[in-house]
Amino acid sequence: MQAVVKPRRAAGGEVATVPDPVPRDDEVLVRVRASSVCGTDVHLWTWNAWAQSRVKRVPMTMGHELSGEIVAVGRSVRALAVGDHVSAETHIADGTCYPCRTGKMNICENVQVLGVDRDGVFAEYVVLPEMNAWKNDPHLDPAIASIQEPLGNAVHSLLPEANVEDLAGKNVLITGCGPIGLLAIAVAKTLGVSSVVATEVNRIRADLARSMGADAVLDPVALGDRLIPEIRAATAGHGADVALEMSGHPSSLATVFGALTPGGRVSLLGLFDRPVAIDVDSAIVTKAARIQGIFGRRMFETWYQVRALLARPAFREKVASIITHRVPIPEVARAMELIESMQAAKVSLVARW
Amino acid sequence: MQAVVKPRRAAGGEVATVPDPVPRDDEVLVRVRASSVCGTDVHLWTWNAWAQSRVKRVPMTMGHELSGEIVAVGRSVRALAVGDHVSAETHIADGTCYPCRTGKMNICENVQVLGVDRDGVFAEYVVLPEMNAWKNDPHLDPAIASIQEPLGNAVHSLLPEANVEDLAGKNVLITGCGPIGLLAIAVAKTLGVSSVVATEVNRIRADLARSMGADAVLDPVALGDRLIPEIRAATAGHGADVALEMSGHPSSLATVFGALTPGGRVSLLGLFDRPVAIDVDSAIVTKAARIQGIFGRRMFETWYQVRALLARPAFREKVASIITHRVPIPEVARAMELIESMQAAKVSLVARW
Amino acid sequence: MQAVVKPRRAAGGEVATVPDPVPRDDEVLVRVRASSVCGTDVHLWTWNAWAQSRVKRVPMTMGHELSGEIVAVGRSVRALAVGDHVSAETHIADGTCYPCRTGKMNICENVQVLGVDRDGVFAEYVVLPEMNAWKNDPHLDPAIASIQEPLGNAVHSLLPEANVEDLAGKNVLITGCGPIGLLAIAVAKTLGVSSVVATEVNRIRADLARSMGADAVLDPVALGDRLIPEIRAATAGHGADVALEMSGHPSSLATVFGALTPGGRVSLLGLFDRPVAIDVDSAIVTKAARIQGIFGRRMFETWYQVRALLARPAFREKVASIITHRVPIPEVARAMELIESMQAAKVSLVARW
Amino acid sequence: MQAVVKPRRAAGGEVATVPDPVPRDDEVLVRVRASSVCGTDVHLWTWNAWAQSRVKRVPMTMGHELSGEIVAVGRSVRALAVGDHVSAETHIADGTCYPCRTGKMNICENVQVLGVDRDGVFAEYVVLPEMNAWKNDPHLDPAIASIQEPLGNAVHSLLPEANVEDLAGKNVLITGCGPIGLLAIAVAKTLGVSSVVATEVNRIRADLARSMGADAVLDPVALGDRLIPEIRAATAGHGADVALEMSGHPSSLATVFGALTPGGRVSLLGLFDRPVAIDVDSAIVTKAARIQGIFGRRMFETWYQVRALLARPAFREKVASIITHRVPIPEVARAMELIESMQAAKVSLVARW
Repeated sequence: MQAVVKPRRAAGGEVATVPDPVPRDDEVLVRVRASSVCGTDVHLWTWNAWAQSRVKRVPMTMGHELSGEIVAVGRSVRALAVGDHVSAETHIADGTCYPCRTGKMNICENVQVLGVDRDGVFAEYVVLPEMNAWKNDPHLDPAIASIQEPLGNAVHSLLPEANVEDLAGKNVLITGCGPIGLLAIAVAKTLGVSSVVATEVNRIRADLARSMGADAVLDPVALGDRLIPEIRAATAGHGADVALEMSGHPSSLATVFGALTPGGRVSLLGLFDRPVAIDVDSAIVTKAARIQGIFGRRMFETWYQVRALLARPAFREKVASIITHRVPIPEVARAMELIESMQAAKVSLVARW
Repeated sequence: MQAVVKPRRAAGGEVATVPDPVPRDDEVLVRVRASSVCGTDVHLWTWNAWAQSRVKRVPMTMGHELSGEIVAVGRSVRALAVGDHVSAETHIADGTCYPCRTGKMNICENVQVLGVDRDGVFAEYVVLPEMNAWKNDPHLDPAIASIQEPLGNAVHSLLPEANVEDLAGKNVLITGCGPIGLLAIAVAKTLGVSSVVATEVNRIRADLARSMGADAVLDPVALGDRLIPEIRAATAGHGADVALEMSGHPSSLATVFGALTPGGRVSLLGLFDRPVAIDVDSAIVTKAARIQGIFGRRMFETWYQVRALLARPAFREKVASIITHRVPIPEVARAMELIESMQAAKVSLVARW
Repeated sequence: MQAVVKPRRAAGGEVATVPDPVPRDDEVLVRVRASSVCGTDVHLWTWNAWAQSRVKRVPMTMGHELSGEIVAVGRSVRALAVGDHVSAETHIADGTCYPCRTGKMNICENVQVLGVDRDGVFAEYVVLPEMNAWKNDPHLDPAIASIQEPLGNAVHSLLPEANVEDLAGKNVLITGCGPIGLLAIAVAKTLGVSSVVATEVNRIRADLARSMGADAVLDPVALGDRLIPEIRAATAGHGADVALEMSGHPSSLATVFGALTPGGRVSLLGLFDRPVAIDVDSAIVTKAARIQGIFGRRMFETWYQVRALLARPAFREKVASIITHRVPIPEVARAMELIESMQAAKVSLVARW
Repeated sequence: MQAVVKPRRAAGGEVATVPDPVPRDDEVLVRVRASSVCGTDVHLWTWNAWAQSRVKRVPMTMGHELSGEIVAVGRSVRALAVGDHVSAETHIADGTCYPCRTGKMNICENVQVLGVDRDGVFAEYVVLPEMNAWKNDPHLDPAIASIQEPLGNAVHSLLPEANVEDLAGKNVLITGCGPIGLLAIAVAKTLGVSSVVATEVNRIRADLARSMGADAVLDPVALGDRLIPEIRAATAGHGADVALEMSGHPSSLATVFGALTPGGRVSLLGLFDRPVAIDVDSAIVTKAARIQGIFGRRMFETWYQVRALLARPAFREKVASIITHRVPIPEVARAMELIESMQAAKVSLVARW
């Protein structure tokens, strides 16, 4: 079959012919109908420092966001059948380690990530463990179905645990309006929050943030020292009750802590690449802040929440609007370029080989 | 001043002249602009069995739902001033008992309820402890501001604790569409739920339930044994994730447990007057159900949630629409009759003496 | 091999020769070193109403509490090896249903219980899914290792969720001192509680309750109306913060609600066989009580808690002391009789065929 | 009366005669029977950078940890009486700000700390709001009763919320064995944890840590790079489930994050004086860590937990053993010196003027 492959430990990638995958007893074989490009894929493509240290195996088929149709099932598969439409939870967990046995499969000690640790979805076919195949409404646009995975990151950032402080009536701050930040704005607006304030420097993204429903979108560079006072003004003087850091910029981390209400909650999803100096005393200790690292999604509570969101037509429209480009998959190099140059929000890859 | 008084331990009430109230050091004096009638007031008026056992003191000024304007403050009052618009948290707590010292002022061991244990708000003026006076947006319609207290019951039923299981993506069942049930439908629809199913026999209320946004409104009498299968069908086969019992009918309690998904959560607000037979084994134990009794509101987390809801124009309109009647307060007897005969949903009392 | 079999839908059971079990790819084969008798086994043996309605298949090998040694593994087994000592989580879940996908495998929609729905552990050998085999310290007494499963029920009753109200400083009431009640007393005493009050009518069990560490053991029949006042006196006047109902007696349910502090928490594990009349208004609603049905154990958070408890020598001794009888497994009929007549607390079956 | 006073904005302090305090309506007047010295008092005495920026008012009576007897009550005081023995919650909250109204009085926006913002307890008498006076068992040693306040910090670090992840069966790491770290070890050992590992360089404190019950006490300087592997070895290979940073050393912060199990929980109580560089990606984000800033104590859930702990004779003995010195209060300068030079763990001040 055809696949987008990382052939060697160097920048770039290529479309190549690879062997057809065969499902094991507990796996399903999926024909890919749509996939989409994540920032991680761009890092792998450009072969940045993170990619160089993270990737263990080449050649490897890239990609992890997909939707497709089951064309074969292993003999132990119980809940799925040929013809079912599915997307993938991309963290493949071992099920028996300490985190897995205590409800945290997303941080499995032996986690394998699709398209990073094992062959991914930028291909005609992919195999998935039954556990990781999430059954979709067959009427859902495949391009949107493929985006459920990052939408899950956005939901998980807002609702990291079953018993987290509820968001009803709270003010939410989101720093960074990349695809997950944009999705998080749209999600937050459905959860009974009081207001959503976002920060973003890029004009295209700031406009999308407004169309996602942000009550205020602030430019941190333009505002400088007035940023935190502006956030306070936009949150009834209390500051943010809940803050999501999604930019990976050290200055945004300072914004998050400075604008947080005492006793407030922070979700950290953005990666910073290098250590960040934090004034722990005022940022965390005396403010009694709560901080949660965000990695993956809850398996599979988050997926049910994603399903319920996508059942709302108005929400689906918002999600569709951040897919700014749809590109045939053989032109994957152009998709990478569109994201890297920040011309695109989300790029969907059409399975036209 | 003029007030609606319960003069003696018997059915009825009357408008009478009573002494003007004087605030203590920690109290505020409020001129009442609007009040509204709760089912509790009707029980007191008709002097039913509950009222006979509950009321300790007559004569007493009735009523507890209000909005008004502060006209005087005690010398220890810090956060409020003359001219502020306020409503009342109607549970007046002592602040030092075991529940109060552990975050549960709503079930204070020595709680005094306005209009039941101390003089209430169906009057020209009322005194409130500063702690119990909740500052309103001065532009809020006084009739709506007065309804914040039962709206708080609705919110508290859905969000009984800070760290409760989130509602995002969950199916909600509400049995009984009196005023609090109707408000609960409207609130649930703002919290990212998957769907809201309500049950109600009265046609006027069932129609209001639909206009509040219920995805399905089912008549338990008409459906009989088909009620629970219908609820399951309306909740993707899982049953209700969260159920709110707001009718006080034993058959609704059976519905709640029968339609609950395993591991689901139940809030009980309705009062049943007499013991109810429950099949504890199947309803609770083997189903791993969680049940929460609902009394009052969280003090004061719930009030912030109420404030955020009422900042939404669409939500305010829904709330306004359940005020089916506005009656000058001297005609309070008629207001009681409208509610008792189920012709009215919520009756607002206009402060025109 | 030899096994204790329920041969037909009638009272009793017998030792019989049955085919040797063969593990599938994802299963392990365990040589049983010790097993123990649960109340459920007695119900199956005596063929009471519950057993008649619950059992779908005969003949079937009985029993679910065990410890043993792995003698063969399926080819997909990853974390276990021949020679490992294991016990069994007895709820075999499908892993893909709604409860399983949302962290509640113990109430799997398609749960199969060992010795009830599939062949059990009163045998020379048993097969278990890898997921359900819990690796033991090889130095742990097999008789104690076998009791981890009901010990898990006790732990789960006290700690039903990850984010439950902490027990530190709280007063705990336990009604009913059967084996799980006794274990719950011992567990509660390790969790920083303020005091544990138990109720029990049987003298042997009441004495064991004291040796488990109960601060007070009260006889509900002898005390009558003075029972609840006595519990209040033993809990600093507040009543019980947390109550565990483990007897299945309707009168104990009334005791639990009557003695509960407002806002307190109840775990219900005992089964009542028939509907129970509950004064919902005073027991639950106005008291703002929280109730949790208890079924099985958290998979597998509870097992880690059990492991940590059994690492304490003093705790192990307490557990050993409730194994009042050790009987060779061919004399299983005598074991059943000892429990049914309440002469025994826990009976261990020695694997001497 | 006599009092230990900070007379001016400079190092040192003095015993001086000051006016007798008079309680307001809602306050009680307490005759001090014992007080004790906190690290904060030493900072104020030596007038370090923190003290210079924090203190707004001199002259001021120092001290905040105390036990004493009520000798007069204001006319609004309801639950306390002359003769009652009390200690003080040292955070005096306004009760109406956003944190206070949402269950977080310990981080009141207008908090006044005894001995920092208003006259403290190193005096013959002190006035306290009724709300802040915590009634003691009159038989409790006054020196121990005075230490309840830092004991509350220790408890709060372990149990920061009502619905926090339970500690049963978990491994706990505590970095820094000053008085609060030592108390935290003793508390953790009562909560059903699997093990407690502590780090400390000072030999006196390390010995006390062992006598508090730490399962391992490790010297971070001596171990260097082997510290984190040693902690892993002492925690069954998983790392710490819960870590308490109580030293204020940047290297300990790195230890905490390095030794934390994925998905683990961190409480930060130590102050670092300057920004600390944190590798947010590996320490928090990809590890899905949860972090909680610790400031004060829960008001007043923590105090009930403290009371229950001190009801245990063995626990009281441990607490007594960390009071290494008892000094008459006029020799307060010597007490400060004993602590600053790390010769003392906790110094009790005897009310012998």
